Amino acid sequence: MKTIKYQDLSDYYEAQIKKGILKTGDKMPSLRQIRSEKKISMTTAQMVYSVLESKDLIVSKPKSGYIVCSPYNHKIQLPEATNPLQKAENSRPEDAAINVYDTIDQKHIVQLSLGIPATSFLPVAALNKCIKNAVNTIDYCGVQYDPIEGNSRLRQQIAKRTLHWNGSITLEDVITTSGCIPALSYCLQSITQPGDTIAVESPVYFGILQLAKHLRLKVVELSTHPQTGINLDSLEKLLKKQEIATLVIVSNFSNPLGYCMPDDKKEKLVQLMTQYNIPLIEDDIYGDLYFGEKRPANCKTFDKEGMVLLCNSISKSLAPGYRVGWILPGKYKDKVIKTKAIQQISDTAITHQAVALYLESGKYEKHLRKLRQDLYVNYVKVTKAILEYFPDETRCTQPQGGLFLWVELDKSINAFTLYKKALQKNIAIMPGIAFSLQDQYTHCIRLSYASEWNDDVEKAIKELGILIHSMSYVK
Amino acid sequence: MKTIKYQDLSDYYEAQIKKGILKTGDKMPSLRQIRSEKKISMTTAQMVYSVLESKDLIVSKPKSGYIVCSPYNHKIQLPEATNPLQKAENSRPEDAAINVYDTIDQKHIVQLSLGIPATSFLPVAALNKCIKNAVNTIDYCGVQYDPIEGNSRLRQQIAKRTLHWNGSITLEDVITTSGCIPALSYCLQSITQPGDTIAVESPVYFGILQLAKHLRLKVVELSTHPQTGINLDSLEKLLKKQEIATLVIVSNFSNPLGYCMPDDKKEKLVQLMTQYNIPLIEDDIYGDLYFGEKRPANCKTFDKEGMVLLCNSISKSLAPGYRVGWILPGKYKDKVIKTKAIQQISDTAITHQAVALYLESGKYEKHLRKLRQDLYVNYVKVTKAILEYFPDETRCTQPQGGLFLWVELDKSINAFTLYKKALQKNIAIMPGIAFSLQDQYTHCIRLSYASEWNDDVEKAIKELGILIHSMSYVK
Repeated sequence: MKTIKYQDLSDYYEAQIKKGILKTGDKMPSLRQIRSEKKISMTTAQMVYSVLESKDLIVSKPKSGYIVCSPYNHKIQLPEATNPLQKAENSRPEDAAINVYDTIDQKHIVQLSLGIPATSFLPVAALNKCIKNAVNTIDYCGVQYDPIEGNSRLRQQIAKRTLHWNGSITLEDVITTSGCIPALSYCLQSITQPGDTIAVESPVYFGILQLAKHLRLKVVELSTHPQTGINLDSLEKLLKKQEIATLVIVSNFSNPLGYCMPDDKKEKLVQLMTQYNIPLIEDDIYGDLYFGEKRPANCKTFDKEGMVLLCNSISKSLAPGYRVGWILPGKYKDKVIKTKAIQQISDTAITHQAVALYLESGKYEKHLRKLRQDLYVNYVKVTKAILEYFPDETRCTQPQGGLFLWVELDKSINAFTLYKKALQKNIAIMPGIAFSLQDQYTHCIRLSYASEWNDDVEKAIKELGILIHSMSYVK
Repeated sequence: MKTIKYQDLSDYYEAQIKKGILKTGDKMPSLRQIRSEKKISMTTAQMVYSVLESKDLIVSKPKSGYIVCSPYNHKIQLPEATNPLQKAENSRPEDAAINVYDTIDQKHIVQLSLGIPATSFLPVAALNKCIKNAVNTIDYCGVQYDPIEGNSRLRQQIAKRTLHWNGSITLEDVITTSGCIPALSYCLQSITQPGDTIAVESPVYFGILQLAKHLRLKVVELSTHPQTGINLDSLEKLLKKQEIATLVIVSNFSNPLGYCMPDDKKEKLVQLMTQYNIPLIEDDIYGDLYFGEKRPANCKTFDKEGMVLLCNSISKSLAPGYRVGWILPGKYKDKVIKTKAIQQISDTAITHQAVALYLESGKYEKHLRKLRQDLYVNYVKVTKAILEYFPDETRCTQPQGGLFLWVELDKSINAFTLYKKALQKNIAIMPGIAFSLQDQYTHCIRLSYASEWNDDVEKAIKELGILIHSMSYVK
């Protein structure tokens, strides 16, 4: 029977793709080929490929026929480990990092720039209820200040969520903040002085660079592998050579590289920092957004001496606009509390209570499962579009979670020019130079797959491909 | 008729007090005296004084009989203009300013320390409705970021409220913040470098000192009059002598002195700063809390060149826990936006929308009228209690608005010891040393009259009086 035949065949190809026998980027046999090889009708052949296409396992590419597209066995090459300039001095990159926020509320712009999850991925109705309940359950309906350390119900929930990786954290170890950026800012302000040097991965989230510059810190950028993170040998060499105030790291699904540092490497890193008695600031904001089987550990898991200041928030998973973040400051608690008292006094009482209620409701895990699926599908679709529309020499990361792809274009492409040209066409991307204080990553871009996939997004990536092709010809 | 007689007599004394013929601190004739002078019965005499007492115009003081207590014509002496040490170096005062926040959520403590309006003074029910409407009216139900500059409906309302003192400010001139402290922090960070010197009034709000210390700024404290504010001659001398990055000032109902700088002096101050091309950071957070006929102007009113960065919030008048503040940054707008982008990105979308809706509803002015009355009554009652329970040599400010009294005790009293003793008795006050970086104001305290008046507050002030008396005897 025909139906069986096309299902059998599509299952066969799906298995080959999943086993990695057919890799992303491989050309599939043409319809004519499988018709004659498998002795099936053209209609059946078309149905086989249409099933594989609907499952996002192959993609039709103009002039090339069908191409395999499976996120776990790319033929798109990974970028190599970075080899950044390690000078502890700051050149002045263009302020793309600031201007990028100009697009926050511009609905006509296709947002491939910011790491803001699409509203349709968020549990808005449940959160709305929590806001209403927050007003009814919080002291003074939320018009008064929270204590400096934060809402204790929220701190309790945050502590509870650490149980699966740490049995000893209590609400006393948690300080809330108005988002992850204030968390990072308070940590840096608490343990550094102007003129100090800090170490970071490279490329590194521009927000950390902007903060460091603002606080007059020097920055050393470390060699970083796109799948396992910073090079510990480089770090140890640096620690031996130079006084470093702290290392700032996003150990899980780092922004922009998307790597997940293996757990044993995290443990070694914490041992190394402890040995040199240098605090480690860890931003774990993407840790819950994994594509694999389970949540990876974080550096804090291996922190026996309180050397790790863990920063986190719900801005990537629940509600950026609620401004709810937190710090597990380890032994730097007093300093961090003082910094918060000086800069902010209190967070917004109502939204912090609302998030406490949401976490208490037990719905968060279910939401995260759905969110991870949504993001994974987005990631596959964006990767597929890159494969389809970008030049063949393009390299691209294969993140195991998080929100971002790091795309290396041909070295001749000026990605800042691309960024400006794209913006003229109402497409927002992040140029690579924003992710270093040195003059590097000029041919790279970061693409966010946090926006909901639709025809506009696909058109935008196609448009980017056209721009990149046109810029390649110009060289 | 008896009834008429006691009313006539109480009206007569009330008029004498209001005209200032009888001043605060004056002794009233004894009951026996008025009985024989006015030829009335003892019962009538008692009724006259009981009416005056119920109107808070007189107070019964043990052993002294009845004392006049009218806030506009005190016999309590005003403190003299301050003559602070003008060294631009920081001593290290005790961290009373930080520890004081420990009492935020401790309900057993009588709060005479923090400038937080009592919940009963705030329009909580109307605000609750605005929160619910905010969720329904804001884009994405408030789960997404606001633009960096802030919610445009809120900025529109803030601009509109400047109409009565400035015809030209539009929403483009407004940047929202998550409270007034972040506003001050962004302004200081935008226009100073570590090592710079800033000028402040003296005594000065400890939050400004803590911020300055945190940002590694040196602080020069200027001589300040308890009714008219900083001495402009001292300021001009300083400007001639030394490079100053900015002056930070609370021109209306300053914290802690409560002075209101006369409008022509504000104009001169702005001219002076403009002449020396030095930005002026003005904190106008108490401006709406006036006891007089109309809102005083602020320095920004006289700012033709964009030299004034005006900071404000609704934390003293509507809802501290909503974290809604703003800056009118004048010509420093780009710098301030950049600082906010680096440190915070977005405020809390829902509470900012809620305040926009509340302001649009037109209820704010009515609420402010009520709030001013409540605070004025509180002020009178606290002053009356001080007069009753504190030693006679006590000097005390006569604020024309705001939330605070500045009380000068006998020079032999260590107010920090008093602060600690009071805290043991569950009474929170602010010791004077927190209001300077030099070793001064050691015999002063700041008392807030923002908490609702009740028997506990009266008992607390009585208790403070007992403590002060006991410490006086010890000398």
